[in-house]
Amino acid sequence: MNEFAITIKAHNKPGVLRDITDMMAKCGINISYTHLFVEKDESASVYMELDDVKDLETLAYNIRTHGNVEDVKIHRSLGEIYGKRIIIIGGGAQVAMVAQGAITEADRHNIRGERISVDTIPLVGEHELAEAVSGVGRLPRIGALVLAGSLMGGRITSAIEEIKKEHDVTVISLNMPGSVTEKADLVITDPVQAGVMAVMAVAETALFDIKKIGRRKF
Amino acid sequence: MNEFAITIKAHNKPGVLRDITDMMAKCGINISYTHLFVEKDESASVYMELDDVKDLETLAYNIRTHGNVEDVKIHRSLGEIYGKRIIIIGGGAQVAMVAQGAITEADRHNIRGERISVDTIPLVGEHELAEAVSGVGRLPRIGALVLAGSLMGGRITSAIEEIKKEHDVTVISLNMPGSVTEKADLVITDPVQAGVMAVMAVAETALFDIKKIGRRKF
Repeated sequence: MNEFAITIKAHNKPGVLRDITDMMAKCGINISYTHLFVEKDESASVYMELDDVKDLETLAYNIRTHGNVEDVKIHRSLGEIYGKRIIIIGGGAQVAMVAQGAITEADRHNIRGERISVDTIPLVGEHELAEAVSGVGRLPRIGALVLAGSLMGGRITSAIEEIKKEHDVTVISLNMPGSVTEKADLVITDPVQAGVMAVMAVAETALFDIKKIGRRKF
Repeated sequence: MNEFAITIKAHNKPGVLRDITDMMAKCGINISYTHLFVEKDESASVYMELDDVKDLETLAYNIRTHGNVEDVKIHRSLGEIYGKRIIIIGGGAQVAMVAQGAITEADRHNIRGERISVDTIPLVGEHELAEAVSGVGRLPRIGALVLAGSLMGGRITSAIEEIKKEHDVTVISLNMPGSVTEKADLVITDPVQAGVMAVMAVAETALFDIKKIGRRKF
């Protein structure tokens, strides 16, 4: 967790992010997480989590006086607010049941001071699912991925191998036909239990180590 | 939607993001969305969506030859893969029910070529909930927010006023005691219906304009 996060509202022009990151680099500040997006009113919203900040107020003042910057705010980090993310991908009926288990279990851990989010997307098609699985490697704060479908293999399986190798993501699969079950860390038949176990696997308040179970089916 | 997205794997050192954004600025490229985070192996993952790129292959080559860059990949954008996000915040039991409606409805629209994700966090406490609501304004690709609780007011209501004013977010609330229902765009009693309506409100394949309904309770 990082102690400092700032949000900068700026004019959406080429060079603004360069100027801000240049200011950080000159102060020897490391950006551990950032995102920038364009608001509906066409201004740019730049969010940054910073390491090694000695004087946040002065830094905020310096950024605020940049010609293209409209506003600077200091917050807690998104990691502290939304925590680790469980991602559930698959068919609507099963994604909804896995989400029910995961949200209910996340509630129990969040009450005890943790922060776990449950993010989902229902999709159809091998190409679409494989692309969404690959994309998980490009999302921040990922804890675990649950594959909630009735038939998954081919390119989806290749995408799982890739994200496991490149990003060390924990993958839980429902018990189903197709080769994804061979590559998952854990295979669960009941969707509600799959959601609960995904949360237990990433929760610090749970005494559950997925590596100790081995690649078994339940 | 942006046509080009790239992911850069780099050494996590101050100045790397500055060098990359400098390269973009010099080519007159506008960064419409970016995020950077630190991987478990301590390398930095930089994801960018770019406007006005004339020669993506040359840009990718130039980035790849930077001393601190390990790898560059070209992808479809996260907006094209995961689409607009419905965010559901509140108590576990109700968040799970709203999610069930939203995921099932998102499935119906995603089958017809849309991309809608359903992201959730169950939380307890006025401060924690207000902070999560405020944070929604700092998240990318937001379509609508659903407040899924049994009692919400005070600072949560202030946070709703703030994100509605600053970020133009559509807010749907369950029917409940507390002042949040006065600030929501729509108040729904049934949690499954609230989830369905949140998705309909952002879906392009739905003939549903939340502004036409007016601030009514159902």
